[in-house]
Amino acid sequence: MSRESDSPRARLLLTGDELLRGFVQDANSGFVAEQLRDLGIELLDIRIVGDDHREIEAAVAAASSDGETDLLVVTGGLGPTHDDRTSEAVARAAGLQLELDDDALALVESRVRAFGRMRTAEEVETFTPGNRKQATFPAGSTWVDPLGTAPGYAMRCESGLVVVVLPGPPSELRHAWSGIRATRQLTELIARVGERHERLVRVWAVPESRAARLLSELGHEDSPARRLTLCARDGELELSVRGTDARAIDDLVTGLCDGFGDAVFAVDDHRPIAEIVGAELTARGWRLGCAESCTGGMVGAAITAVPGSSEWFVGSLVTYANEAKTAVAHVSKASLAEHGAVSEQVARELADGARVVLNADVAVGITGIAGPGGGSDDKPVGTVHFAVSMRGDTRHRHVRIPGDRATVRRRAVGIALHELRLALGSIR
Amino acid sequence: MSRESDSPRARLLLTGDELLRGFVQDANSGFVAEQLRDLGIELLDIRIVGDDHREIEAAVAAASSDGETDLLVVTGGLGPTHDDRTSEAVARAAGLQLELDDDALALVESRVRAFGRMRTAEEVETFTPGNRKQATFPAGSTWVDPLGTAPGYAMRCESGLVVVVLPGPPSELRHAWSGIRATRQLTELIARVGERHERLVRVWAVPESRAARLLSELGHEDSPARRLTLCARDGELELSVRGTDARAIDDLVTGLCDGFGDAVFAVDDHRPIAEIVGAELTARGWRLGCAESCTGGMVGAAITAVPGSSEWFVGSLVTYANEAKTAVAHVSKASLAEHGAVSEQVARELADGARVVLNADVAVGITGIAGPGGGSDDKPVGTVHFAVSMRGDTRHRHVRIPGDRATVRRRAVGIALHELRLALGSIR
Repeated sequence: MSRESDSPRARLLLTGDELLRGFVQDANSGFVAEQLRDLGIELLDIRIVGDDHREIEAAVAAASSDGETDLLVVTGGLGPTHDDRTSEAVARAAGLQLELDDDALALVESRVRAFGRMRTAEEVETFTPGNRKQATFPAGSTWVDPLGTAPGYAMRCESGLVVVVLPGPPSELRHAWSGIRATRQLTELIARVGERHERLVRVWAVPESRAARLLSELGHEDSPARRLTLCARDGELELSVRGTDARAIDDLVTGLCDGFGDAVFAVDDHRPIAEIVGAELTARGWRLGCAESCTGGMVGAAITAVPGSSEWFVGSLVTYANEAKTAVAHVSKASLAEHGAVSEQVARELADGARVVLNADVAVGITGIAGPGGGSDDKPVGTVHFAVSMRGDTRHRHVRIPGDRATVRRRAVGIALHELRLALGSIR
Repeated sequence: MSRESDSPRARLLLTGDELLRGFVQDANSGFVAEQLRDLGIELLDIRIVGDDHREIEAAVAAASSDGETDLLVVTGGLGPTHDDRTSEAVARAAGLQLELDDDALALVESRVRAFGRMRTAEEVETFTPGNRKQATFPAGSTWVDPLGTAPGYAMRCESGLVVVVLPGPPSELRHAWSGIRATRQLTELIARVGERHERLVRVWAVPESRAARLLSELGHEDSPARRLTLCARDGELELSVRGTDARAIDDLVTGLCDGFGDAVFAVDDHRPIAEIVGAELTARGWRLGCAESCTGGMVGAAITAVPGSSEWFVGSLVTYANEAKTAVAHVSKASLAEHGAVSEQVARELADGARVVLNADVAVGITGIAGPGGGSDDKPVGTVHFAVSMRGDTRHRHVRIPGDRATVRRRAVGIALHELRLALGSIR
């Protein structure tokens, strides 16, 4: 990775046997990476190791002395059990004493009790010496109010290295981060960030190879002045351009927008597609409904992940069984018998049915074969029909999505939302 | 991490600027870790770096000479664009020539054309010199049939180190892995795995601190003979015990099962809770329905993630707006007016309504406040009501879930599925 001029540089160390053994997928590295990018801090690398205090100690020592690391973020090992030894390891590497903080102890204790009340009666008696450990930090640390029972903290080593320690559970980590950002240790680091420029172009249904050809036509070469990152996910392709030369960056963005034409759906806009569709609907005062078969509720889930979606989303009829398609979404038995559940006709009737039943202005219907079973020569696994129903007009599209069950379903969600976007755009 | 007797040892290197910059969350490390564990290969660490061929070269060189790494798995950088340079870096570090494989070229070419047909007409013309690079491998490599256009491969360095290179997109990586497992290079490595034992105990709604106390009461100490890993996720707690001493491992599992009592819901059973519920339903010949408000389709999505769920799942009424609750799930307007949408009464009517409308044997209703808005002193953010409706009996439970919008929703899905499990168990 080419180094950015004067940005502070960070490393991230995730700890947990469960991560190395595949019991849980790391769900934190992307969040921390994004937060650091937003702050203008360059992330040099990410390491994932087991519950091994020696690894943590070695990482703190290495980052203190490598001459290029300003910030080390460590996650995990703040729990009450025997394998939670992160604070001990950080303190030892930094040559600092561990100190019990009375305010933190009172808070942890109250959290453990509140947590107990919320769940089962038994849990009221869960306060253990392990929780005392959770209120113990290296001397000079600034701890932050936890979501759970494990306060995260920021501290500065004698070498100048700032170490941030965060709890491992993703929601606790996210909560702790918001407090950590405001600590003295982080504020001082952020104050050192130099001027940066960053633009973002997002296109739909463009293969990477076409993007590569366009970049070559535009004569782009990566340099610290202007660096481009491509990122493909589920049919969307994101082109992020950043560097020190604002004019060169703007020129490339203009070239990309001209070259990709109407495949561009967002510029400098990071919102998920569901939120972009929601904004279009809000502008019209329209409300949306869905009828889903193979996606099983994933379209509704993606939509309702957007805070405030209740303003423009009525609901989704997840009609997995054929009986549900007829009973709930008013798909005709004749259509099911004649064309099969995975067909243009049934997709159209699902969309129309959802619009009527949910009293919505626009509705999307999705029916397909996610696999692994259920495919045929005629309708192979990955066949998905989409329909968008609006007053007086129902559009249809038919796609064959390559991949396994999870991929077919995930991609189908993206296609459904982009079909909605295109349908709304067409009547602008 | 304590070292297992004679297991082969691996390291994992994930590459991609997008991972370091937080544009995408790593979704591969957990999968690779799990696959290695299943094969009895010990994973020493995971590193994530940018699109930097020097890092890849250095990692291959280090793993070749550190005397403890048998396998290096590298992901990413197999695409057609300028920043895809993994094969070049691996070949250079291993001192091998890059060779174009004609069969692979024909396959990649046909895939690019097929991919084009499946999407937009434009994409038919996407075959570029970049795709030629995708059919070029270090000499002696065994490549495997790709899901997309990037074949993964396995090769052996002169040092004896086996290097596996996989494409970065999660579905392509998973597909490639199934081929890689069968390569000569991997088969030889797997043949070296010694005898191992592993057991798994899963409990519901048990805090880690209670687990820590039980482990202390049972006198457990980690050793190569018997090592325990705790993993908490969304209300479930998994205790994995592994090592060389089968009897000691069985003794601990017995102790855990006795100590946790009816909080134990699965032993040596890795299936997601939705699949466990599905097996219970199948045993009874019952079919399930849902009515979801705050989870917005996530319960239906979790259920239909299970292949074959169409055998026992009818559908879900995602009734986000109150009008949808009355129109689709037959919730009474009087109940909404009197108790509010987030109430025991409405949860019960949602469950009863879903059971009747979907003609199901059992149905779960979920209504709550996911936040960030919508909370009040009386019903704070995180308040969720669950009801399970069966013939002649509707059970209710009310929980206050701590955390942000995504956490509240994700936890609510787990609680809904476990409430179903408990309801089905109670009438066994």
